[in-house]
Amino acid sequence: MVARPALNKSTRLCISLAARPSNHGTRFHNRLYDEFGLDFIYKAMTTDDIVAAIGGVRALGIRGCSVSMPWKEAVIPLVDELTPSAAAIQSVNTIVNDDGVLSAYNTDYLAIEQLITTHGLDRAQPVLLRGSGGMARAVAAAFRDAGFRGTIAARNRVAGTALAGELGWDSTESPDGLSAPIIVNVTPIGMSGGADASQQAFSDAQVGEASVVFDVVALPVETPLIRAARAAGKHVVTGGEVIALQAAGQFALYTGVTPSREQVAAAEDYASRA
Amino acid sequence: MVARPALNKSTRLCISLAARPSNHGTRFHNRLYDEFGLDFIYKAMTTDDIVAAIGGVRALGIRGCSVSMPWKEAVIPLVDELTPSAAAIQSVNTIVNDDGVLSAYNTDYLAIEQLITTHGLDRAQPVLLRGSGGMARAVAAAFRDAGFRGTIAARNRVAGTALAGELGWDSTESPDGLSAPIIVNVTPIGMSGGADASQQAFSDAQVGEASVVFDVVALPVETPLIRAARAAGKHVVTGGEVIALQAAGQFALYTGVTPSREQVAAAEDYASRA
Repeated sequence: MVARPALNKSTRLCISLAARPSNHGTRFHNRLYDEFGLDFIYKAMTTDDIVAAIGGVRALGIRGCSVSMPWKEAVIPLVDELTPSAAAIQSVNTIVNDDGVLSAYNTDYLAIEQLITTHGLDRAQPVLLRGSGGMARAVAAAFRDAGFRGTIAARNRVAGTALAGELGWDSTESPDGLSAPIIVNVTPIGMSGGADASQQAFSDAQVGEASVVFDVVALPVETPLIRAARAAGKHVVTGGEVIALQAAGQFALYTGVTPSREQVAAAEDYASRA
Repeated sequence: MVARPALNKSTRLCISLAARPSNHGTRFHNRLYDEFGLDFIYKAMTTDDIVAAIGGVRALGIRGCSVSMPWKEAVIPLVDELTPSAAAIQSVNTIVNDDGVLSAYNTDYLAIEQLITTHGLDRAQPVLLRGSGGMARAVAAAFRDAGFRGTIAARNRVAGTALAGELGWDSTESPDGLSAPIIVNVTPIGMSGGADASQQAFSDAQVGEASVVFDVVALPVETPLIRAARAAGKHVVTGGEVIALQAAGQFALYTGVTPSREQVAAAEDYASRA
């Protein structure tokens, strides 16, 4: 670990804006700044005026701004450039300020795009995706834009139908009885602390018929679904990989430095111990 | 020195806005945060949009904002409350954000007000003050509001006459041949690095006829004028005292903690070594 310079007039500030800020991003980014000796600081914030807040990011020369719920769409008219990842899903989670010019990205989309490539997923194989929220939109759009076809399964019929319509995919209310070579969970099923923490988003039978099992849930990384998939010898893609890639992408956009997989994992581990 | 907490979502951010930021405030405030173990950070910034910048201070929950040239008047319509120190001279150097309500202060004025009291200066004694800039306005107004009468001596005749008019004081272009029991320098004469670094703002004769010699120049604290006054056994008030009091006042407004004279001196010393 390199000594980070003492705070000075040239230190670059990055922030996050969330309705309910956590300590995760603040710990993650500052830890990596320390790791690389970068003259940056990162601090979670909230606001009750998103227009003035983004105006402040620009006017105060704040280098980067991570955007969470409920402002991922609201910031679109406030930035100067919507890059392809944010434009693809009309949702922003990362704003970069280059001398007063604000560019918006979606590093969730970028992470899925990368994982599709690095895992060598085959676009000839149809996707069965559970979920219809903001993250489901990012995941499904990245698959669609990579040439995949598929089906959205969502309990929220309105949202599911709308998302499938945007994608040009099929939709269904329940995945029961369906099968696909690539099954993807983008619901909270299997997430610790939730009502469905011990549930699998897809049955053992569906896992058995799939070749790739992808679970976006990252807490824990080893969800019941992922454990079932590993037990069945399937190719798995975990939420831990998504989180690490999106965070590394955001870090690289702000600093120009790309941390290694090990550095991201160590920083994630440190951040999670908050 | 107490350990300052690691940066977290609750860490409070204070900033400064100056056309040409220096490292002094950043070093001074962060040093004192360390000293007290306060969960604060301070960072110098600049802007090309003062309206959006102050809007950002409010919307981002930035706790405090020090304001320098050229925005000390421009921020007046942007804050919610002008406290008496800022209202007295229509000039702001400190903004405090209490849950989105911005209150403006002038800690230069407050420092002079305090020094008049702690040095027991006698309002029956007339003041001869050199200077007509922003700081001269703060110093003269604090004297006037404490019940003093006096004369403004300023090479800039327009500014000097205007200031004297505001105060209800007399004005003159040159202090030559004048004398007063309290003589105050608020010009750069005697400041190191300037053209008049080796000059005295008042002659030895004027020093001899005065009882109190006050020099606002702080770099160095021992200006030629102050040295002459000490040699003549006069009561002196130095720019070092002004800087320390105004900085301590600002620190107290942001944090609620009032540092001791020794703590301020140590932090000033540290900050000056930048």
